[in-house]
Amino acid sequence: MNYKIVFYILGKVMVFLAFFMLLPFVIALIYKEKSGIYFLLTALLTLAAGIGLSMIRPKDRRFYAREGFVVVSLSWIMISIVGAIPFVASGEIPNMVDAVFEMVSGFTTTGASILPRVEDLSKCMLFWRSFSHWIGGMGVIVFIMAVIPMAGGNNMHLLRAESSGSNVGKLVPKMKQTAIILYGIYMLLTVIMFVALWISGMPIFENLCHTFGTAGTGGFGVVSDSIGSCTAAQQWIITIFMFVFGVNFSFYYLIIFRKIGQALKMEEVRWYFLSYMLAVALVTWNIMDVVGNLGDAIRHSAFQVSSVMTTTGYSTIDFEMWPSFAKGVLLIVMFLGGCAGSTAGGIKISRFVIGFKALAKEVKKLIHPQGVKITKMDGKPISDDTTRMVCIYFLVYIAIYVFSFIIVSIDNFDFETNFTAVAATLNNIGPGFGEVGPTDSFNIFSPISKIVLTMDMLIGRLEIFPMLLLFMPSTWKNK
Amino acid sequence: MNYKIVFYILGKVMVFLAFFMLLPFVIALIYKEKSGIYFLLTALLTLAAGIGLSMIRPKDRRFYAREGFVVVSLSWIMISIVGAIPFVASGEIPNMVDAVFEMVSGFTTTGASILPRVEDLSKCMLFWRSFSHWIGGMGVIVFIMAVIPMAGGNNMHLLRAESSGSNVGKLVPKMKQTAIILYGIYMLLTVIMFVALWISGMPIFENLCHTFGTAGTGGFGVVSDSIGSCTAAQQWIITIFMFVFGVNFSFYYLIIFRKIGQALKMEEVRWYFLSYMLAVALVTWNIMDVVGNLGDAIRHSAFQVSSVMTTTGYSTIDFEMWPSFAKGVLLIVMFLGGCAGSTAGGIKISRFVIGFKALAKEVKKLIHPQGVKITKMDGKPISDDTTRMVCIYFLVYIAIYVFSFIIVSIDNFDFETNFTAVAATLNNIGPGFGEVGPTDSFNIFSPISKIVLTMDMLIGRLEIFPMLLLFMPSTWKNK
Repeated sequence: MNYKIVFYILGKVMVFLAFFMLLPFVIALIYKEKSGIYFLLTALLTLAAGIGLSMIRPKDRRFYAREGFVVVSLSWIMISIVGAIPFVASGEIPNMVDAVFEMVSGFTTTGASILPRVEDLSKCMLFWRSFSHWIGGMGVIVFIMAVIPMAGGNNMHLLRAESSGSNVGKLVPKMKQTAIILYGIYMLLTVIMFVALWISGMPIFENLCHTFGTAGTGGFGVVSDSIGSCTAAQQWIITIFMFVFGVNFSFYYLIIFRKIGQALKMEEVRWYFLSYMLAVALVTWNIMDVVGNLGDAIRHSAFQVSSVMTTTGYSTIDFEMWPSFAKGVLLIVMFLGGCAGSTAGGIKISRFVIGFKALAKEVKKLIHPQGVKITKMDGKPISDDTTRMVCIYFLVYIAIYVFSFIIVSIDNFDFETNFTAVAATLNNIGPGFGEVGPTDSFNIFSPISKIVLTMDMLIGRLEIFPMLLLFMPSTWKNK
Repeated sequence: MNYKIVFYILGKVMVFLAFFMLLPFVIALIYKEKSGIYFLLTALLTLAAGIGLSMIRPKDRRFYAREGFVVVSLSWIMISIVGAIPFVASGEIPNMVDAVFEMVSGFTTTGASILPRVEDLSKCMLFWRSFSHWIGGMGVIVFIMAVIPMAGGNNMHLLRAESSGSNVGKLVPKMKQTAIILYGIYMLLTVIMFVALWISGMPIFENLCHTFGTAGTGGFGVVSDSIGSCTAAQQWIITIFMFVFGVNFSFYYLIIFRKIGQALKMEEVRWYFLSYMLAVALVTWNIMDVVGNLGDAIRHSAFQVSSVMTTTGYSTIDFEMWPSFAKGVLLIVMFLGGCAGSTAGGIKISRFVIGFKALAKEVKKLIHPQGVKITKMDGKPISDDTTRMVCIYFLVYIAIYVFSFIIVSIDNFDFETNFTAVAATLNNIGPGFGEVGPTDSFNIFSPISKIVLTMDMLIGRLEIFPMLLLFMPSTWKNK
C-alpha cells in the first residue's frame, strides 16, 4: 500500500470540501442565520488539515487498483464525518451517529433522513444537505480529477472506483478530459433544470435544493411532504429530470458530439427506457382505483417510478398506501436502479442486461452444447471477466443485504420495514415501505441499525468493492 | 428431440405410478373407506396408458441433456396431474387447480396445502399426500433407474436432471448402481426412523405419514397443528431425522464403505452443520422471552430450524408469532436449504460454498492482481464451468422469484405474505410467514397465484433448468 499517495489525495479532497462548505455559509449570511458560523469554522479547520496533508510529496506516484479503492472509500467516509460537524456543533442534529447518517445519506445521494420534521432545520443546513447530493452525485474524486493535474496514467483506478457501473468506459483517452466532460454535462443539465423550475415559478431557495437533489438523484426535500405541495407542472419537470439524470452520461456525450445514431443504439439506455415505461404502465393500472382519475394516476405513477428507479426518493403522494402490486413494482425498480455512468444508484440496468445475456447463453448451451455464439453489448463482445464480475457483484450484494437485514431485524419492526429499509439504503433511494415509508423517518432505528444502514449507503454508492476492501487484512499488507 | 424415447420413459413412469397408487387403496381397505376406489380406478387407467406408451420401441436410444431435462419435467407434471385425480373424483378436493397444487406440493416435498383443515380428508388421501413426499424425495426417475434396465450410457443426463445440487457426482461408475445405492440408503434411513417413532409410541398410521414426510423433507401433517401435539421425545426424533435427510447422501455412502475420514472432511456437510448450529443458537437466544424457559426454547428452535433449513416445513409452534429477528433467521435458512444430493430443497449449501469461494477469489484478485490460486472444494479444483453455472443459477432463481412475487402481489396481500409465499414454494418448504404462516393455508390465493406457486414448486424441486427448457422454443426444434 502506497500510504503517502493515499494521504496526499485525501488532503486534496479536504481542501475542496472546505471550499464547498463555504456555500452554506453564504446561504446563512443571506438568511442571517447564526448557525452558518459552524460551516465557516469547520471549513477553516478542514482547509488547514487538507493543506497539511497535501504537503506530503509521494516519491512513488504509482497507483494501483488497491490504492484507488482505498482512497475513494476513505475520502467518502471522511467527507461524511467532516460534513456532519456543523449539524452536531449547532445542535440541530445533536447526535453524531444521526448527523453522520444524514450526511452519508446526502453524499451517497440516498436521501433517507433521521429527521421527523425537516422544516425544523435552518436554511443553511437544508442547503448543505441538498448540496451534498450534488457533490456526491457525480463524485468528489471525479471533480478533483477534472480540476487539478494528477501525475501518472493510472488515475483510471480512481475514476473506476468512484464511478458506477460494471465497466466504466473512458469517453476520451485521457482520464482528466473524461472527468471534465462528465462534470461539464452534469453542470449543463443542472443549469437547464434550474431554469425550468425558475420559469415554473419555484422560489430560488427551493429551486436550488430541488435541483441539487434531482441532479444527484438524492431526494432530500425541504418540507415534510417532499414534492407533494409543488404544482403539477413542477412535478412533471422533476419527473423528467430525475429520469434524465438516470441515463448513462455517455449518451449525452454522444448526442453532443452528434453521434445521435450511436446514442440511440445504446442497449442500456433502451432497456432503461423500456423498463421505465413498463413500470409506469403497470403502476398506473394498479393505482387507478386509489387515485381516482387517469391523469393523476399517470402523473403520480410517472413521478414515483422515476423517483424510485433513479433512486432519488422524492414523493408526491404517500405510496405506502398503494396496493401491493404497485408497491411490488416499485420495489423491483428500486433494485434495477438507473444506468451505469449516471448519478443514479441501485444495481444498474447494465448489470441486469449483462446477467441476462450470460443466462441466455448458458441455457442455449444446455440445449445445443455445440455452436454457441459470443454475447455482445452495443456491438462489442462481453468478456468473460465482465460477466464473472457482474455475477460476483450480485452474490456479494445479496450477502451484504442478508447481513444488514438480519442485524436490522433485532429492532423487531415488521418484515416489510426491515426488508425495505435495507433496500432503500443499499440502493441509495431514501424512503422504503412500512415504518420507513415516504412520510416516515429512519429515526425509529437503534444506533446499531443506523450504523449498519449508514454503511449500506456507502457500500451502495461506491458499488461494494471499495468498502469491502477496507475490511480485508490483505489490503493493508505491503507486498 | 428424440420424442420416441421421451414417450417410452414417460410410459415407464406411469406404470410405476400405477403401482404406487395401489398403496393408498390398501390403506382404504384397512380403514374401510369408500374413497379408496378412486385410487384403484386411476391406477388401472394409468397402468393401461403406461403399458401402451411403453410399447414404443425407440430405434435411436441415444439420449442427450435436452431429452433428460424434458423427460424429467414432463414426468413430474404428469405424475402430479394423475396423482390429483382421486382427490377431484372423490370430491375431497373438488377443484382441479387445488388438487394439482396439493399433489405438486406432495411430490416436490413442499408440504404447502390449500386445505384449511387436513383432518377433513379421509385416511387414504392423507396417506397418499404423505407417500408422495417419499416418492418425490429421492425422485421417481432415480427409482426407475434403480429397478429397470436402461440401455445406453447416457442415463447420467436423467439422473442429473432430477437430482439436486450443482454437480452431481456418480458414487460409482455405473448410473444404475448409483441409483440403487441412493435408494438403498434412503430406505434404510426411512426404516430406522419408523422404528424410532414406533418405539416412542406413535400410532402406525401417523408414524408412516410422519416418516414419509420427514424422509422426503416434505412436511404434510395429518392434523392441523402439524407436530405440535406430539410428545417432546417424538419432536426430537423428527428434528434429528429432518437434519439427517438434509445431509448429502454421499456422506452416508462414505460412512457405509468405512471412509469415515473422507466423510467428515466433506466441506458441504461441515458448513451445513455449522449453519444449523449457528441458526439454532441465534433463534434460541431471540425466542427465550417468548417461550419462557431454555429447554423449550432449544427444542422449538432446533425443531424449527431443522424443519425450515431442510425445507420440510413441519412446525411445533406458531413461529409466525416469534420476534422479527428469529423470523429473519428462519427466512435466511429457508434459502440456504440442505445439502446437494439430499432430499432437501432450497438453493443448497454447496452453491453458497462455491459462490463464496468464487467471491473470495475475485476480491483477492482485486487486491493482488498477480498470484491468485485455484479454488478447491473437497480437495478438487472447482472448474470455471461449475462456478459460472452456480452464478447463473442465482440469477435465474432471482428472476423467477421476482416474476412470481409480482404476480402474487396482484392478490393484494401484505408484503410479508407475498414474499414468503414465493420463498416457501420455490424452496419447497411449505409454510411461510404472514397469511401463509404455519397455521394458515394457501387457499387464500387466486387461481392464477396458485398456478404460479405450483410452477414454483416444480421449478424449485427440479432446480430450474428442466422446467425452464420446457418453455424454450429451441428445445423442441430438431437439429
